Amino acid sequence: MTAQDPGAGPAPATGQSPETGTGPEAGSGTGPQAAPAPRRRGRPSRTAEESGPGARARILEAARDQFAERGYDKASVRGIARAAGVDPALVHHYFGSKDEVFAAAVEVSFEPATVVPAIVSGPRDGIGERLARFFIGVWENPASRAPLLAIVRSALTHEAAAAVLRTFVLRRLLERIAAELDVPDPKFRAELAASHMIGIAILRYVIRVEPLASADPEAIVAQVAPTLQRYLTES
Amino acid sequence: MTAQDPGAGPAPATGQSPETGTGPEAGSGTGPQAAPAPRRRGRPSRTAEESGPGARARILEAARDQFAERGYDKASVRGIARAAGVDPALVHHYFGSKDEVFAAAVEVSFEPATVVPAIVSGPRDGIGERLARFFIGVWENPASRAPLLAIVRSALTHEAAAAVLRTFVLRRLLERIAAELDVPDPKFRAELAASHMIGIAILRYVIRVEPLASADPEAIVAQVAPTLQRYLTES
Repeated sequence: MTAQDPGAGPAPATGQSPETGTGPEAGSGTGPQAAPAPRRRGRPSRTAEESGPGARARILEAARDQFAERGYDKASVRGIARAAGVDPALVHHYFGSKDEVFAAAVEVSFEPATVVPAIVSGPRDGIGERLARFFIGVWENPASRAPLLAIVRSALTHEAAAAVLRTFVLRRLLERIAAELDVPDPKFRAELAASHMIGIAILRYVIRVEPLASADPEAIVAQVAPTLQRYLTES
Repeated sequence: MTAQDPGAGPAPATGQSPETGTGPEAGSGTGPQAAPAPRRRGRPSRTAEESGPGARARILEAARDQFAERGYDKASVRGIARAAGVDPALVHHYFGSKDEVFAAAVEVSFEPATVVPAIVSGPRDGIGERLARFFIGVWENPASRAPLLAIVRSALTHEAAAAVLRTFVLRRLLERIAAELDVPDPKFRAELAASHMIGIAILRYVIRVEPLASADPEAIVAQVAPTLQRYLTES
């Protein structure tokens, strides 16, 4: 049912190299499997266990949990570091600011670098269905749903979190999709598609209005896929 | 551009009689223009100015402002009464609990008793466009947008507010629409339509992702109307 299972076990590598920029160009053009080449910053950490490749995944997992449990406002780099068992300097070293940890924690759920190609590269007439099924799959998985709910809640109540969603996550995700589309106003179209999926998530998982809250995910996909298909492929 | 202007001047009467039930049957079957027949409850108020027909509209307007400014959690019947210049007992008298004041304050923006018939009673092939234009119109109007944003924020962060939205507002609004539809699963279809409009509101007015945030409202209506039309009329 789910297109992926990003929440089970340690957070998977997202294929994103650590990024420190905040402008619109940050992240675009990053190779999907570019190896991180961390610059030394802050205090060096002491052991390989603390600073090795496993540490980055542990930090991301801890960040997801912290943002989910505490919300954007109350989560802190210090608390994330403590939960991951690393020095706060290592969090800064891998991700930069709290905003950037937040963006990376969101992207663990969506893995845009690998998921977007999979959605857009199949037969063009199935793009709406693939996108709908992927999105519902991410939300149906409780492990990815909790941090996503936290993100949506934070973005609606804190401008800083809204800015992260706007600047990093949506831009990267939607621009990747839009770049593959052959319609007028592709970003506008991709945003309309995203708006529908976000609205469904809110009514189904947060407000829990019936019958949508209990509907078979496939019944939702069946209705929504033609909508996304039209937005993404029909002029 | 806007289908109505609910925020200018005193809040219009919504045609809803005060309701005290919280079960699923609350509100269904209420006549659209049933005159309120308030039961005496709490302290009687002292003057005609304080308790006359203008008081109910003033309370609703104050409630909208209080919920918009303070959020669901921090708004109180006492604070609403103070802002409206009435005794808190009069708020209870007209509306019952804080939840019910909240529901009534939301409904001032949507006026389901008058708006839903106007949307569903015109030519069937224009229902998607009328619904899209109405919804965008309500959100484009800053006077109705502020309390709606507060409601969405509150519903996403407080289960009590989510329950009000689920139990009162969405049920009344969507059941009225669904009752007029001639498709399978009309409530499910109405909820899918609502989810799209809510998602657009969030991306456009809260997250403010571009180009959606700056798009001409008519460009949104042009894209979204066929989606709503399909959900509401095509089996």
